[in-house]
Order: sequence, then structure tokens, then C-alpha cells
Amino acid sequence: MISSSSLTPEVLEQAYGHRARECPSSNEQINLVFSQDRSFDLVELEQLLEAVGWSRRPMRRVRLALDHTLLKVGLWRHDPLFPRLVGFARCTGDGVLEATVWDVAIHPIYQGVGLGKHLMDYTLESLKEMGVKRVTLFADPGVVDFYERQGWTLEPDGHKCAFWYA
Amino acid sequence: MISSSSLTPEVLEQAYGHRARECPSSNEQINLVFSQDRSFDLVELEQLLEAVGWSRRPMRRVRLALDHTLLKVGLWRHDPLFPRLVGFARCTGDGVLEATVWDVAIHPIYQGVGLGKHLMDYTLESLKEMGVKRVTLFADPGVVDFYERQGWTLEPDGHKCAFWYA
Repeated sequence: MISSSSLTPEVLEQAYGHRARECPSSNEQINLVFSQDRSFDLVELEQLLEAVGWSRRPMRRVRLALDHTLLKVGLWRHDPLFPRLVGFARCTGDGVLEATVWDVAIHPIYQGVGLGKHLMDYTLESLKEMGVKRVTLFADPGVVDFYERQGWTLEPDGHKCAFWYA
Repeated sequence: MISSSSLTPEVLEQAYGHRARECPSSNEQINLVFSQDRSFDLVELEQLLEAVGWSRRPMRRVRLALDHTLLKVGLWRHDPLFPRLVGFARCTGDGVLEATVWDVAIHPIYQGVGLGKHLMDYTLESLKEMGVKRVTLFADPGVVDFYERQGWTLEPDGHKCAFWYA
């Protein structure tokens, strides 16, 4: 276990890239970090997404999809040697008029302490910095309240989401 | 006015690119063509979008957004010198797991003869060729039925769309 003081700005930038930011944590024993630049181990990412109940997708397709993703946010539990991925979100979009959030996940053992909110805050702020004016997402019934509490507008002007499967 | 016979495969490819396809038309006097490659005059595009009732957006931002758009489909009324843009749709996404449809428009004087359906068919087929497995969109109340009739699933598993404005 490392102490919070070990996470200097230099360490932060070196391990997580220049847009990294510490995530507030209720547990002083651990450091959590948001990163847009630290690359993912795809097996670790899929394990995270499976842990929150999502169905497995072919690794090759996930890799391709990530390559064409506008914004990828990892939430890492810092460790000088082996940071662990405990949260994730990604956005597609044109980065100007529209961005859409997909695959939001916090590992179950890190849930319930507000990390989902911090993850969305960091994600929205990053999109705002890009200049995106409107962000959209498709919320599961179980998380509709979560997004509403954070200021998202549900079905504005009676919009309905529609899905088409190939 | 030109006759349909003038639209040879060579003309089609030269003026509209290799992925162009003729759009079925109930009026034999005109040729309509789908294109992914013919470039847009942004003023003409904004006029089309305004004609269907959408609010004007800064041209510079529209240009940037189009540059970062996965798939842009123009529906052109063919003319050897001055093809006119009568329909449009675009998709953002990673092109693998997700694609989202935006800005679907048929010019009012070309509406009511099934062109919207043909436009969506061409768009979905193009996404399918890319390998996209799921396509999503946010439907205005006025077009929910339109999409439902074409096989789109509304609010699958109770999903709600959520919007966030910067």
C-alpha cells in the first residue's frame, strides 16, 4: 500500500498522461486517478465490463472500436508498478456538436462511494474542454435516476431512443 | 431536365463516388442519387436542415463536426452541372460496435414519397457493410412511428435517452 503523498504531479503525468487527474476517494489508503492516455489491457477492460454484467464482445472488435473512440477514460487504482483499472467510460461522436457516452462501469467492489459521479464529472468536463455542446447517452432503467440527479435531461421534448440491430 | 438513361454507371461514379447508388423515385423525370463521397456545400446543407425546421448552427462548427463524422450520406437530385442536395443523414460512432444517426432530413418538397425510408435503408446498409452491429438514434416524437415501422426497437429493455447540455 502506498500513501497519497507518493502521487506527485510528476508521477501522475508520467504514468497517466498530462490530462490525468486524481479522483476524490473516501479511502485515504488508496489513490485513484482518471486518465485519458494510459493504455488499456483489453483483457482487464473486458473483465471490468463483465464484472458489471455486460456480455462479452470479441476482443478484436473491442480493440477496433476503441481505436475509433473519441474519448476513453480509465479510472485507475494507483500502484507504482501495477495500476489496476477500476472504472471506465468512453464516448463516440464528432467532438464538436455531438458526443455519446457508452460503457460506463465502476468495478462492483468500488461502487457505492460516489465514484460513478466523479467519473461522469471528469468525462463531461473533458468533453466540455473539447468544445462539445451536447452529450447524449442511453440509460438502463437501473441508472436513470443516477443520471437525472446529476442534471441530465431525460427524453427532452419527448425524444425516444431507437435501436436497430444488424 | 435529363432523362434517366443519362445516368450511366460511369456518370454515377464520377459525380458521386464509387459507393453511390440510385434512389428509387416515383417521378421518372428526375434521378436521385445517394452518395457518401460527393462533398457538401455547407450553405446548401444548412439551408436543407433549416428547411426541415432545425436551428442554425455556426458554419465553422458544422464543418469540424462533418470532418469527424463516421458516415455522411447525401441524397442528390442529379443534374449534370448542378446536382442539388435534397436529403441528408450522418452517423457518428466507432464504426464497429456503435453508430448513432443524426441530422436526418428530406427537403419538404421531396417529402411524402418514401425517400426518408430509402435514405435510412441506404444508411443502414452502409453501416452494415462497415460491420457495425448496432445502430442507435434519438427520435423526435413526430418520427417515432416512422422508425418503428422500419424495424427499429424503441426504448429496448426500458432504456431512456438522456441529454446533457454544456
